[in-house]
Amino acid sequence: MITYHQANGAVSLNSPTSMPNACGFLWNKKMMIQMNCRGYAVAQFMQPEPAKYAHGPALEAKTFMQPEHPYFSHHPGRFFYIKDNQSGELFSIPYAPVKQATDSFEFIVEKEKISWHITHLDIVCELSLTLTTTDCAELWQLNITNNSGRSRDLSIYSYFPVGYMSWMNQSAHFDTELNAILCESVTPYQKIEQYFAHQDFKDTTVLMSDIAPTSYETRQAAFEGEGGLNNPDAIINRALASKPAHYQTPVAVMHFDLPLQTEQHFQANFVFAPVKDKLEAKQLQQHYLGSPEKREKINKQYQEYIAQADQQLSISSPNKEFDNFINHWLPRQVFYHGDVNRLSTDPQTRNYLQDAMGMVYLKPDETKAAFVKALSQQNSSGKMPDGILLNPESELKYINQIPHTDHCVWLVICITAYLDETADYEFLHQPIPFADDIAPKTVFEHIELALTFLWSQRDQRGLNYINQGDWCDPMNMVGYQGKGVSSWLSLASAYAMRLWSNVAKSTGKASLAESLLQQASTINQVVNQHCWDGEWFARGITDAGNCFGVSQNQEGRIYLNPQSFAMLSGAIDNNQWQKMKLQIKQQLQTPFGMMMLAPSYTHMNEEVGRLTQKFPGTGENGSVYNHAGAFYIFALFERGETEAAFELLHTMICAESEANALSRGQLPVFIPNYFRGAYFQFPEDAGKSSQLFNTGTVAWIYRIVIEQLVGLKGTSKGIKIKPQLPKSWPELHVCRRFRQAQITMQVSHTTTVTTQQVWVDDVPLESDANGEFNFDVLPKQTYRLKVLLPIS
Amino acid sequence: MITYHQANGAVSLNSPTSMPNACGFLWNKKMMIQMNCRGYAVAQFMQPEPAKYAHGPALEAKTFMQPEHPYFSHHPGRFFYIKDNQSGELFSIPYAPVKQATDSFEFIVEKEKISWHITHLDIVCELSLTLTTTDCAELWQLNITNNSGRSRDLSIYSYFPVGYMSWMNQSAHFDTELNAILCESVTPYQKIEQYFAHQDFKDTTVLMSDIAPTSYETRQAAFEGEGGLNNPDAIINRALASKPAHYQTPVAVMHFDLPLQTEQHFQANFVFAPVKDKLEAKQLQQHYLGSPEKREKINKQYQEYIAQADQQLSISSPNKEFDNFINHWLPRQVFYHGDVNRLSTDPQTRNYLQDAMGMVYLKPDETKAAFVKALSQQNSSGKMPDGILLNPESELKYINQIPHTDHCVWLVICITAYLDETADYEFLHQPIPFADDIAPKTVFEHIELALTFLWSQRDQRGLNYINQGDWCDPMNMVGYQGKGVSSWLSLASAYAMRLWSNVAKSTGKASLAESLLQQASTINQVVNQHCWDGEWFARGITDAGNCFGVSQNQEGRIYLNPQSFAMLSGAIDNNQWQKMKLQIKQQLQTPFGMMMLAPSYTHMNEEVGRLTQKFPGTGENGSVYNHAGAFYIFALFERGETEAAFELLHTMICAESEANALSRGQLPVFIPNYFRGAYFQFPEDAGKSSQLFNTGTVAWIYRIVIEQLVGLKGTSKGIKIKPQLPKSWPELHVCRRFRQAQITMQVSHTTTVTTQQVWVDDVPLESDANGEFNFDVLPKQTYRLKVLLPIS
Repeated sequence: MITYHQANGAVSLNSPTSMPNACGFLWNKKMMIQMNCRGYAVAQFMQPEPAKYAHGPALEAKTFMQPEHPYFSHHPGRFFYIKDNQSGELFSIPYAPVKQATDSFEFIVEKEKISWHITHLDIVCELSLTLTTTDCAELWQLNITNNSGRSRDLSIYSYFPVGYMSWMNQSAHFDTELNAILCESVTPYQKIEQYFAHQDFKDTTVLMSDIAPTSYETRQAAFEGEGGLNNPDAIINRALASKPAHYQTPVAVMHFDLPLQTEQHFQANFVFAPVKDKLEAKQLQQHYLGSPEKREKINKQYQEYIAQADQQLSISSPNKEFDNFINHWLPRQVFYHGDVNRLSTDPQTRNYLQDAMGMVYLKPDETKAAFVKALSQQNSSGKMPDGILLNPESELKYINQIPHTDHCVWLVICITAYLDETADYEFLHQPIPFADDIAPKTVFEHIELALTFLWSQRDQRGLNYINQGDWCDPMNMVGYQGKGVSSWLSLASAYAMRLWSNVAKSTGKASLAESLLQQASTINQVVNQHCWDGEWFARGITDAGNCFGVSQNQEGRIYLNPQSFAMLSGAIDNNQWQKMKLQIKQQLQTPFGMMMLAPSYTHMNEEVGRLTQKFPGTGENGSVYNHAGAFYIFALFERGETEAAFELLHTMICAESEANALSRGQLPVFIPNYFRGAYFQFPEDAGKSSQLFNTGTVAWIYRIVIEQLVGLKGTSKGIKIKPQLPKSWPELHVCRRFRQAQITMQVSHTTTVTTQQVWVDDVPLESDANGEFNFDVLPKQTYRLKVLLPIS
Repeated sequence: MITYHQANGAVSLNSPTSMPNACGFLWNKKMMIQMNCRGYAVAQFMQPEPAKYAHGPALEAKTFMQPEHPYFSHHPGRFFYIKDNQSGELFSIPYAPVKQATDSFEFIVEKEKISWHITHLDIVCELSLTLTTTDCAELWQLNITNNSGRSRDLSIYSYFPVGYMSWMNQSAHFDTELNAILCESVTPYQKIEQYFAHQDFKDTTVLMSDIAPTSYETRQAAFEGEGGLNNPDAIINRALASKPAHYQTPVAVMHFDLPLQTEQHFQANFVFAPVKDKLEAKQLQQHYLGSPEKREKINKQYQEYIAQADQQLSISSPNKEFDNFINHWLPRQVFYHGDVNRLSTDPQTRNYLQDAMGMVYLKPDETKAAFVKALSQQNSSGKMPDGILLNPESELKYINQIPHTDHCVWLVICITAYLDETADYEFLHQPIPFADDIAPKTVFEHIELALTFLWSQRDQRGLNYINQGDWCDPMNMVGYQGKGVSSWLSLASAYAMRLWSNVAKSTGKASLAESLLQQASTINQVVNQHCWDGEWFARGITDAGNCFGVSQNQEGRIYLNPQSFAMLSGAIDNNQWQKMKLQIKQQLQTPFGMMMLAPSYTHMNEEVGRLTQKFPGTGENGSVYNHAGAFYIFALFERGETEAAFELLHTMICAESEANALSRGQLPVFIPNYFRGAYFQFPEDAGKSSQLFNTGTVAWIYRIVIEQLVGLKGTSKGIKIKPQLPKSWPELHVCRRFRQAQITMQVSHTTTVTTQQVWVDDVPLESDANGEFNFDVLPKQTYRLKVLLPIS
């Protein structure tokens, strides 16, 4: 059912009913579109806040991107009706709104293009969408070929609903000069300041074609009539009314009459876009509806833009599906995050930093620029804000208005990763200002302040206050009275201190290094003293003084994150690990990955807060939350638990058996932020995909693949070689670009060695005093590595 | 096509396609529901802010009630599918979602009940909705009778979509104890304060029946399947899946199998309601799903509640449609406004005061209470706030966050009307506190402060500043720099001063009376000096010093309100009136009533503001804005222009010729806030109804009918008799309750008199020195008036 075209990394789906939510997404710096295989679309652009140019027919709430998006017949989408005027038969592509079964159906998601190949009534329909490198504009191409061996009389109708644009003003008309339907509106406002803020808004949505339509309709209700979307009244008459919309809900319907001879072919190109005015529409027309050669060039540009992502790492393992994901889709998703910051103007600080961390493997300069921006918004107390304001006009919104306590942790973790990958230790000396008005300090000093701040925000026991939440946003009542503490945050602080201790050491600051190690050790000790529940760590201690996430809890008995970070921070001994790993597996592992906590809360717990009001198994309330799962995988690899780590990695990415694919409704073109959890409580629903591709997961998975699975991790002078291959892989071939050098590596499992052996350009590489295989890398060189691993 | 059942004031419609937007509305203190003839619903309840218990399938924006509401297939509604299991035929009532043509269709809007009588496939279906006196609960009754002369095998499915309740938590399940589908959710929030504010929210929507269903479905998508709403997959199998919804969009579908013998009858009663929890649902069940006698009693209570409105005035004219509206629907709409304040917790001050003014003819004590509340929120400077906060937790929202300059004017105008109707001059001595902390002052002193404030807010010319808007909300750029002025507001201030001068005079404050008259005269003079454009008054002068609403303007050349208020304030002489009335008629009158301004603005005018960005012919931008129209009618009657006034009154209420009815899509059960205007610019769209029944119009129209058309206006001791009948009416019979007395009046046009003649209980009544016919009214008395009017 699902076939992968390895050549270009495309994946395709052969039936719209088997996986009705299958979708792909495209983006550029200014916009993002998620296309569902049936034709439904979720699209946003920035002006500068996220905005829509096609709406539902009701007034829609502005909100952050929602998981498990429920599509319905009037959801925005991009469709064409095709009518055989001789037989009266009608169908629509891609599938909705008519939802007929077609003779063949193929939904193809390529990295830079989403397309459909559909055959029905002996007509071959090819529909494709791509974006441009810089503009907010969808480029659609429709190809219709008469394959029937007889001449045909067809009518084609675009159905691009634009929806309820504005209660203040909306209208639509056809412009003959542009061959376009312009749907105009005024974004509603009441405060006069907003008028000035809205002046450059792209309040017009345009559908333009390179073919003049025979007739058109701009009014949604007049188009549908009594027949509704599955059989619109307007189509019965063939020619449409060709009337403007005056305040009625607009729609962009263009009608083309096609008398097609045998084998004759029809092609139309469309631009669908938000614009400020007709002038801007005209510019888009000139850019994107020109000659085939011009279009070809534009498509190539966008292809190159997207291809930036997958030229850094290529692996060839025995699992081709896995390879396809790692080589094409994973870096693409990592690039998306680093490129557009989830289409927000105030990304959450922890997301912003981790998304930037992922980008270090693709475009390290952009990572550095992001860190500079984040650090310049740090307070001189060391505290980081809840969101990073990307523009001067940006403001903190939604959850970023609630103070969280963990942001400093991510600063340390992510900048350490940057240093490993780039060895850009010069960066540490760069002076950067603060949000408040004190004199700039170096990056190193900024980080020291962050660590000092974390150290200061602890209670008399020595545990970090959680206040209204840490990484777990909705855990808002654990410590809102100023007393509750977070074991996770304490352990994450300890981990950050250990990481920075290494940096301090390698930059010659021995006493700081020692003091940080000492602090980390103190915290680890305190967490063990107050939060070790016997077989795992509690999640924290509430304002009322109760440990939670412990064996005596009926719900929320065990949380994954404290365990993963205890592994990373060095808080556990082997005895603890042996106990923990059994409990983690037994209570948290599902066929879809690791649950964030279990059992999911089924009703409000006022000592924990909003988290416990979320639907069980969704979001933070016990879903298979991939971001948390990634940390567990990362920690497992760190501990050398290669088999367990790889199993979970593989599950997250590739467990797309047909049955799972059907129930998850998701092709493996991205990792969603969660799969439904609550596996033991609601088994029927477990494993459903959130379909939300915004997630901190991917930066970590990419890092895990590069630094742990492939085992090529940057050091101050070069690279450390330590592949961690699962037993089931006899071999792995790797190409990696690294600091302008080109590295190829062949890893083989063999019975002929008992410890890892490495050759660089056929010369054996000796391990150092710690048993590590390090070698220096120079720019513009090529290195050919060969690694033999023992079969244990 | 439209038939009126005079007996109970009901109106009915015989086809869902002829007037697809026909609707009725019901309300009680806690909720409001507008039912469309096809089954779509707009319903809100208060908790304390307006909230919804049935949603669209997408996240909906919270907003004030919108005009020209666009319905679509997934809009919330209340529907039943009916399937003949022998033939497989399927239809739905009322009409959507299947939208079949039925053998017969009747949509009946009564004052306290909305119902449908539908016959199809030899099945008689009766469906009705009523509300309760105090609870937020819809009471539905379904009656199915087998009229076919043969036994039938039917299945009935309720389809009550509940929609996207919450991204945080939503679920649904069937409760066997209650015979109910409970759709539960958690209203999303992020700030911890909101958790405490939400604790009593009715986040559960319940559908309960007095009949146990055969099977049920709670999941919208599972119900629809591929077939969609017009042919849901779930119905194909007869029995539904009977499964709970876990985070999927919920729906309340109950399936009843009906093996019906010839003439056999099925009845089911349903309660559809928002509740806090199952306990509250159980209470509703006990109250409303009891014995038929209990239900009868509840229906009677609600009937009596609504009937309070139409026991004050009854007229019998030659126009029965007009009478039906005046006797039943108009007071009902007036009562609705006074009863529930448009379901807001911060009604705009000018709306709140005028809605209260309408209530004086129905329940004067409630009017008084509203004035007390409004006055207690006045600032000691005399300034009134932009909205009246009804609860301690209320806050100013939407447009009430923008300061407007006209609220004091309405205080004076509305309290004067209260004094006229009640003669409650004691009220003027009642001490009332201020919003700021100074000592309480009497109502009279409050009003004096309001007038002093208006007098103080004038520029060096003596014209009132408009700042960010006056009655015309979106005229926000005329004076936002602090310089622009409003001729309307100046004239309205002068009118208010003249009104209060009369009150001062009749309460023995001669010098205040004189000084107010002098101020009014000064303002009138200044307006004439600066704003008289030759044939009409300008609307104002902008910050840049330009008069607008004048002959040299291409758009917004003439505004109605300054002309009406110049008539009321005494600013014009007869010469001006002769010029004005021609221009008003020529430029502003349409077959649907008076446009607020003309020509409508078609693009932004930065000297006028947001008004000019509204769609031409809608809202304040040149629609037939009935509230403005009412003032012109009021002013015409005041000037004795009876024929012109009555023509416009009749147009507003009764111009429901079939053609208009079709284009307006509105039965005359309420006056909408506007009909589309821009009559000369967009003639095709002109006359469409906004369908929005919240409007200050109705208080004025009711006052016009009582005090001017019928001509029974309260005075300090009794009543002044001055009917202003159109020539076309030979006779009018009137019954009026007034200050606990009962007055009947018969008015006749006759050639036998040359001036008005009056008899009270067959005794001739002499006119006073001013030629007025006044007589004293005592409580609990009955008066029989006879009036002869000359045919002029």
